[in-house]
Amino acid sequence: MSQAEQRLPESTATLAALAGHYRTVRLDTETLCRPLALEDYGVQGMADVSPPKWHLAHTAWFFERFVLRPYAHAYRVFHARYDELFNSYYQTVGACWPRERRGVLSRPTVGEVMDYRAQVDAAMAALLDAVPGSAREEVAARTLLGIHHEQQHQELLLADIQYNFALNPLRPAYREAPARSGDKAPAWRWQDYAGGLRDIGHAGAGFAYDNEMPRHAVYLRGYRLASRLVTGGEYLEFMRDDGYRRHGLWLADGWAKVRREGWTAPLYWEWREGAWWRMGLGGLEPLDLEEPVCHISFYEADAYARWRGCRLPTEAEWEAAAAGLEIAGQFREAGCYRPAVAVAAPVEGPAQMFGAAWEWTQSVYAPYPGFRPLAGSLGEYNGQFMCNQMVLRGGSCATPRAHIRASYRNFFYPGDRWPFTGIRLAGDAP
Amino acid sequence: MSQAEQRLPESTATLAALAGHYRTVRLDTETLCRPLALEDYGVQGMADVSPPKWHLAHTAWFFERFVLRPYAHAYRVFHARYDELFNSYYQTVGACWPRERRGVLSRPTVGEVMDYRAQVDAAMAALLDAVPGSAREEVAARTLLGIHHEQQHQELLLADIQYNFALNPLRPAYREAPARSGDKAPAWRWQDYAGGLRDIGHAGAGFAYDNEMPRHAVYLRGYRLASRLVTGGEYLEFMRDDGYRRHGLWLADGWAKVRREGWTAPLYWEWREGAWWRMGLGGLEPLDLEEPVCHISFYEADAYARWRGCRLPTEAEWEAAAAGLEIAGQFREAGCYRPAVAVAAPVEGPAQMFGAAWEWTQSVYAPYPGFRPLAGSLGEYNGQFMCNQMVLRGGSCATPRAHIRASYRNFFYPGDRWPFTGIRLAGDAP
Amino acid sequence: MSQAEQRLPESTATLAALAGHYRTVRLDTETLCRPLALEDYGVQGMADVSPPKWHLAHTAWFFERFVLRPYAHAYRVFHARYDELFNSYYQTVGACWPRERRGVLSRPTVGEVMDYRAQVDAAMAALLDAVPGSAREEVAARTLLGIHHEQQHQELLLADIQYNFALNPLRPAYREAPARSGDKAPAWRWQDYAGGLRDIGHAGAGFAYDNEMPRHAVYLRGYRLASRLVTGGEYLEFMRDDGYRRHGLWLADGWAKVRREGWTAPLYWEWREGAWWRMGLGGLEPLDLEEPVCHISFYEADAYARWRGCRLPTEAEWEAAAAGLEIAGQFREAGCYRPAVAVAAPVEGPAQMFGAAWEWTQSVYAPYPGFRPLAGSLGEYNGQFMCNQMVLRGGSCATPRAHIRASYRNFFYPGDRWPFTGIRLAGDAP
Amino acid sequence: MSQAEQRLPESTATLAALAGHYRTVRLDTETLCRPLALEDYGVQGMADVSPPKWHLAHTAWFFERFVLRPYAHAYRVFHARYDELFNSYYQTVGACWPRERRGVLSRPTVGEVMDYRAQVDAAMAALLDAVPGSAREEVAARTLLGIHHEQQHQELLLADIQYNFALNPLRPAYREAPARSGDKAPAWRWQDYAGGLRDIGHAGAGFAYDNEMPRHAVYLRGYRLASRLVTGGEYLEFMRDDGYRRHGLWLADGWAKVRREGWTAPLYWEWREGAWWRMGLGGLEPLDLEEPVCHISFYEADAYARWRGCRLPTEAEWEAAAAGLEIAGQFREAGCYRPAVAVAAPVEGPAQMFGAAWEWTQSVYAPYPGFRPLAGSLGEYNGQFMCNQMVLRGGSCATPRAHIRASYRNFFYPGDRWPFTGIRLAGDAP
Repeated sequence: MSQAEQRLPESTATLAALAGHYRTVRLDTETLCRPLALEDYGVQGMADVSPPKWHLAHTAWFFERFVLRPYAHAYRVFHARYDELFNSYYQTVGACWPRERRGVLSRPTVGEVMDYRAQVDAAMAALLDAVPGSAREEVAARTLLGIHHEQQHQELLLADIQYNFALNPLRPAYREAPARSGDKAPAWRWQDYAGGLRDIGHAGAGFAYDNEMPRHAVYLRGYRLASRLVTGGEYLEFMRDDGYRRHGLWLADGWAKVRREGWTAPLYWEWREGAWWRMGLGGLEPLDLEEPVCHISFYEADAYARWRGCRLPTEAEWEAAAAGLEIAGQFREAGCYRPAVAVAAPVEGPAQMFGAAWEWTQSVYAPYPGFRPLAGSLGEYNGQFMCNQMVLRGGSCATPRAHIRASYRNFFYPGDRWPFTGIRLAGDAP
Repeated sequence: MSQAEQRLPESTATLAALAGHYRTVRLDTETLCRPLALEDYGVQGMADVSPPKWHLAHTAWFFERFVLRPYAHAYRVFHARYDELFNSYYQTVGACWPRERRGVLSRPTVGEVMDYRAQVDAAMAALLDAVPGSAREEVAARTLLGIHHEQQHQELLLADIQYNFALNPLRPAYREAPARSGDKAPAWRWQDYAGGLRDIGHAGAGFAYDNEMPRHAVYLRGYRLASRLVTGGEYLEFMRDDGYRRHGLWLADGWAKVRREGWTAPLYWEWREGAWWRMGLGGLEPLDLEEPVCHISFYEADAYARWRGCRLPTEAEWEAAAAGLEIAGQFREAGCYRPAVAVAAPVEGPAQMFGAAWEWTQSVYAPYPGFRPLAGSLGEYNGQFMCNQMVLRGGSCATPRAHIRASYRNFFYPGDRWPFTGIRLAGDAP
Repeated sequence: MSQAEQRLPESTATLAALAGHYRTVRLDTETLCRPLALEDYGVQGMADVSPPKWHLAHTAWFFERFVLRPYAHAYRVFHARYDELFNSYYQTVGACWPRERRGVLSRPTVGEVMDYRAQVDAAMAALLDAVPGSAREEVAARTLLGIHHEQQHQELLLADIQYNFALNPLRPAYREAPARSGDKAPAWRWQDYAGGLRDIGHAGAGFAYDNEMPRHAVYLRGYRLASRLVTGGEYLEFMRDDGYRRHGLWLADGWAKVRREGWTAPLYWEWREGAWWRMGLGGLEPLDLEEPVCHISFYEADAYARWRGCRLPTEAEWEAAAAGLEIAGQFREAGCYRPAVAVAAPVEGPAQMFGAAWEWTQSVYAPYPGFRPLAGSLGEYNGQFMCNQMVLRGGSCATPRAHIRASYRNFFYPGDRWPFTGIRLAGDAP
Repeated sequence: MSQAEQRLPESTATLAALAGHYRTVRLDTETLCRPLALEDYGVQGMADVSPPKWHLAHTAWFFERFVLRPYAHAYRVFHARYDELFNSYYQTVGACWPRERRGVLSRPTVGEVMDYRAQVDAAMAALLDAVPGSAREEVAARTLLGIHHEQQHQELLLADIQYNFALNPLRPAYREAPARSGDKAPAWRWQDYAGGLRDIGHAGAGFAYDNEMPRHAVYLRGYRLASRLVTGGEYLEFMRDDGYRRHGLWLADGWAKVRREGWTAPLYWEWREGAWWRMGLGGLEPLDLEEPVCHISFYEADAYARWRGCRLPTEAEWEAAAAGLEIAGQFREAGCYRPAVAVAAPVEGPAQMFGAAWEWTQSVYAPYPGFRPLAGSLGEYNGQFMCNQMVLRGGSCATPRAHIRASYRNFFYPGDRWPFTGIRLAGDAP
C-alpha cells in the first residue's frame, strides 16, 4: 500500500477537531487488534502480508517521522533503529528491513510497540494543542494524511489477519462470525450510461490522495455496468464450466499463475465432505452462494468476465457512474468482514458501488494527466507504485466509511487475492 | 510478441501480387540468417530469446497451421510433432514445448527446418495460384497476417542474435559494423501539441492488427514532445549524476530490478580501459555518444525522464503527433542495426518518430474501448497479452519499413532491454 | 535432529527414579525458556531453526505419541491436529506441516502449549506410577528415549534462540553474558596415538542411540590430535591470510557456498569500528580471541585445517582417543553458552574433548557395520538421515552433561553454522 | 567428474608407445562424436551435462595447459580466452565460464574446436618425439594423466548425449540400437566373504588416480554380495509394491527429491500404451526386463536394497571381492551402451563386477587415510570433490576397458541418475 501522499487541503478543520479525529482513528487500530492473542501480532504468513505488530508500529512511525520530528522540536525519537524497522519505503531501500522478513523479528515486543504508540500519541496531542502559527497548515495537512494512512492500514490489518489465520490448520477465528442473512441476491440487470466527455478525479475541498488528481476530462463510449456484484453462486458456474482449466479464457500471465499455483477456486474456498466452505475472520463457515464472491485476483475477475461475454469496467467508467451516488453500503463499521448479500438495487443506479468488496477495474494504476508529486520528502516517492498494478474502486466491508470516496484509487498486483476484492461486470453500450 | 491477429482486410490485392510479397518476405528471413554459423542457429541465451532455428520453423508453422491445413486440402503436415515444438501460444499450453527450453533441442536440424520451409513455400505458392473462389478472401487475409507475423519475427531474430552474441566472451560479430557517421546530434527542442478530442487507432483499408482497433476518441490535454530521441551522451549525464543509485528516481518495481540485476548502464554498454564500448551486431565497438541510447528498459526510460523533469509520452499523444507524418526514417533496409545520429528535424514536426528505436510510452498495453477478438482459432487468444506490458511506438532500425504505421502498437514488459528500445521525452503544455 | 532411536536398555532403573529424571529434564526445558518474551516463542529465523514453541510442543508430542497413546489406555489426546503440527518426521511427510513454515503458526498459543505439556506430564507421572508389569520394560525404555530426545532439543533451543536474536537489528540478549575470563589459551601440541585395530561404538549397559551400535572394530593408522580446540585468534590468522578468498583451500561444494552466501568470517562475527564483535546469547560482545572459534561450518573447519597443513579427525580416531577420558568439560550446566578459553591440558591427553564446542570430523554420518533399526514405529525411519551429513563429536557448552558420551554421534550438514561447532586439528603419525 | 590427478608412475613405457596410445585415445573421442549432427555438439540439456563440443575442447585444453604450455617452449596457445571457456575447475572459479551456461556459446564453432584439437595433437606429437631428457618423466606422467582424463570424458560424452537426446520429443537415436539378446538372467545367489583385515587401494606399478592411494588396511566384518546386478524386472517389483510412494524406504534427502521431482521410475523409462519403454542411445525401445536396471540414483538403489531387506556394499567390501578377479565384462568396446543381460556367473565369484553398470556403494567419497595431494598446479585442487558424493565401482558398458581397475573410484552425487549406474545387493554374513 502506498497511497500515502496527498495534496494539502486548503482549509483544515480546527486543530482541536483534528486532534479528536486523530484519537479516534488511532484507537480504532488498537481496537481492531483486541481480539488477537499476543502470539498473533508477530505472524507474517507470506511476503505481502505484514504482522499486526508491524502495522501498529509503522503507523506510529509515520507520525513520528513526518510530523513530530520536523515540527515538535523537543521530541526525542523513541528508538534510533525504528527508522530501519518500521519505514516501509520512504527512504532508500538499503536502510529498510526487508519486507518479506518482517515476521522474524520478535523484538520490539508488542508491549514496546504499544509504548511507542503512546509516546507518539502524547506528543501529537501536545503538538496539536500548541503548534505555532507558521506550521499550523503543514502540521494539519500531514496529520490528516497520517490519519488516512492509518485507515488504510486498518483494512490491511484485517486482510492480513485473515490470511494468517486461514493458513493455520487449527482454523482459528478472529471473532465470532455474523450469521448468514438467508437473503437471496436479486437478479442483476444492466445499468446503461451514455458516452461523452466526463471529468474524473478529485478537485475542491476535502481530503484526497495526490494520485486522485488532477481532475481531468476523459472521453467515454457508452457503456453499462451490472447492477450488483457477482455472487459466489455465479462464480461457481464458471468453475463448473471448467473455468480454471480453459486456457482461452485467461490472460497469459494469469494462466501462468493459475498453473504455477494450482488455483482451482477463490482464495479461502475449501471443498470438504461434499460442500464448499470458506475460511474467514469468523473461522471456517459454510459458503453462502448468495454473497458476493471475494478474495479473487484480477486475473480471475477478468477470466470470469470473459467467460460471461462481458468485461470489467475501466476506472473512469466506474467513477463516472459513482459520481452522483451517496456513499452508502457495507463498510467496516457494520462489523461483518465478508461481503453481504446485495439487497435489491434502487430503481436508479447500481447497488454495492461502495463497500462490500473492492471492484477490480481493467485500468492499470498510472498517473493522471498532469499529475505532479508534492515537493519535499513526502513527495519524494510519489507515484513509485504506478506500474504493473491494477486500480480497484469502491471500498469493501473492511474499509472505514470515512475513508472512501468516488475518486478513491486503490491498487494491487493483478495476481493478488488476499484483499477484499470482488467483481462487477461491465459491457459496451448495446 | 503476440500481435498476430488482424481484422481481415475487406479487399486484398490480387493473389499474384500477394504471392510475390510472400516470396520476398520469406526470403528476407533466410537472408537475415545467412551470416550465421550453423552452430548459431540453436542458441537461446535467455528465456525471452528464441534460437534462430526456432524463428525459422515457427514462421513456417504459422502458414502450415493456419493457411495450408485448413485450405490446402491435399497438404500433408511435414512432421506430426512440429505442432508441439513450434507452436508458440495458439493452443493449450500443455501441448507446447516450454519456451525457456527451446535452446536444448538439437533436432530438427537446420537442414530439416529449411526443408520444412521449402515444403511450406511450395505448398503456399500452389495454393495462392489455385485457391477456390470461396476461400480467396480468407486465404488472402491469413496469408497477409502470416507475412506481417514473419516480419515481426525478423526483428526479433536480429534482437535475439545480438543477445546471443553479446554474452559470448569471444565477442563474435554478426556482420561488419557500419562506420560511425561522425555527425553531431542537433540540440533538441519541444514540439507543442494542442489538447482536445483526438481519434487514434486504425480504420479503413490497409493491414492492421486487431489490437489497433477500433479507432476511437481520446481526450488529450495540451502536451509536448522532444524533437528527437535521447542520445547516449545525454543518458550518460544521468549515469554520472548517480541515476542508477538514486532510489527516488525509480518506479518501485524498477528499483527492485536495478538492484537485483545490478544494472549500472544500458544493456550492451561496457566500460573498458577508460572508455565506453557497446556490443552490437557488428561486434564490440566504441560507443558513439551522439547516437540515440538503445536497449534500455521502460524503467530506465521512465527514470531518465523523471531525472530530466519530464515524462514519457502516452501512446495516444504519440499517435496523435505521428498521424500526419510521412513514414520515413532509419529502418532495417538501411542495414545499420543500431540507431543512427539524428539529423536536424524538419521545421515542422519532430525527427526520428519512425525507425531508429522503439519509443517507450507510459501507456500499458490494454484493449482499446470496444475491442473485439476475431472469431475462430486465430482469435482464440486475442488480447491474452494485454496485461503487465507497456506500449512502444514507431519501429526501429531493425523494423522492415513496410511493417510499421502510426497506429502500430508494439509491447514488452517494462524490464525488457534486449529489443531495440529508446527514449523520447514528453511534457505537459506549458 | 533425529537421533531419537535407541537400543532398549536391558535393565532400567526403577520407575520411580525414572519418573524423577523425567520431571527434572522436562522442567529444564521450561527453565531454558524462562528468559524469553512471549513474542520470542514463535520466531523461526530460517528453515533449519524451529520456534521455541515448537520445541516445547514437539517434545511433549513425542511422549504422547510413543508412550501415552500405546500404553496409557485411558489417555485422550490433547488435540487431534497436533500430530500434523508437532510431528517432525516419524510419519509420512504428507501429513506433516512443512518444516520451513513452523514460524507462521501463531496458534496454538504458548499458553496452550504449556497446557499440553502439563497434561502430558500428569499422564506420564500417572503411567510411571502404575504401569502394568508386562509393559514396564517398554515404557521405561521409551521414556528414557524421550528424555534423551528432549535433551537434544534443549541444545537446539539455545542454538535456535541465538540465531533468531542475532538476526534482529535490535540485538536483543537472551540473558546477561558471563564476563570474559581474561585467560590465555595455552599453546597447543600434538597428542600421538598408535594405530591398530580399535573398537568403537556403544556396547553394554547405559543408554545410547541405535546409531552408536553395534560396537565394531576399525583399523586405524597412527594419528595425532591437537591438545585443544582452535581459538578465534588462530582462525583470524586464516582470515587474514585470505582464507575466504583462496579457492584452493576449499572443498568444491564449500567454495560454492562461500561465494553464494558471501561468507567472510564465522557466523555471528561482526566487524565494527575497527574491532571484531560477536553476537551471542548475551547480546553483542567484543570477541575474545582466546576462546575457541565457534559457529563455523564443516567447510570452514576443513579449509582451516588444510590451510594449517593438517586435517580433521575421523570419528573413529576421535572416539578411540576419547574412550578412556573422564567426561568433564564446559557443559550447559556452566551457564556460559559460548566456548570458554581452554585451560592447560593435563599432562596426558587432550583438553576440551568434551563440552565447549562440537568437533567436526571428516566422517560422513553413515550406518555402522551391522546396524539394524528397531522394530516397530520408533524404528520405522531409523537411519533416514544417514546421508550427506557429517559426524560431530564431544558435545558443547550447550549440551547437558548427562547427555554426552564418548560414543555419541551428532550430525549436521557440512554447510550448517548455527549449532555450537568448533575445530580440533588432526594429522597422521609422523 | 574430477579424478584427474595421479601418482606419477616411476617408470613409463617408451615415449613412442605413449605417443601411439595418445593418438588412439584422442581419435576414439572423435569417433564417438561421428554419429552426431553438427547441431548436437552444442546442446546442454541440464546443468550437469556438458555439450559434446565442450568435451572435445576441454580435453584438448588439458594437454595444452598442463603439458604443452610448461614443456613445449615454442608452443603458442590457440586462443587467449580458451582458458576461460574450457577450464573446468583447475583455477579460481572467478575466471571460469559458468558450468551451467556452457550450452549458450555457439562460438567457437565445431570446426574451430577441431582445429584446436589438431593443433594440440600436432604439438603433442612433436613434443613426445623430442622431449628433453630432464622433462621426460614429467611429460610422460602428465600425458598419461591426460589420456585417462580423456577416457573419463568419453564416458561422460555418451551419458550426456543420451540425456540430450532423451529429452527431445523427436526421440532421436545416436545410432541403431543393438538387438535384445533374448537371454534370461540367471537367478542370483549370495557370494560370501570372510571378514578380517583387508588391504584396499592402489599400490605398485600401473596408472592410478591419487584418490586410490595410499593402499591401506580396512577391517571388514563377514559380508555377502549378490552374484549379479539387479535386473529391470526385479526393480519393477519394487515399483509395483509402491516403492516410490513409501516414505519409510527412503533416506530423508532422497524422499525429498522423489517428491520434488516426481520420480516414479528410473530415468529414461516411459510407460506407453500398456508397456514400459526406455530411451537410450538407440532411441526409444521396449524395455528388456532381464537387463540390469540402469540410470538410477543412489537414493533409488538404497531404497530398493532396503525394500529387499538388504543393503548396498561398502567400497571396501566391493574392492576386496573384486581384487582377485579378471577385468572382464561388457565395456564400451562391445558397442552396446546399455547393460546386457547377465550370463550365468562362474562357479566361484560374482558376475558383472566389471562393466555393464557402475555399482553404487554406501561409501561416501572421502580421502583414504594418509591421502596427500600432488605438489604443484595439478595437485592444487586434489580432493576438492571429496564431500557429499558417493563412490561407485566397476565401470559400465560405456567405460573403455583400459580405463577400469579394481581400485578405481568413481563418484557422483546421490541424486544423479544420468550416468550408467546400477545396483548390486549386499548383506552381512549370516
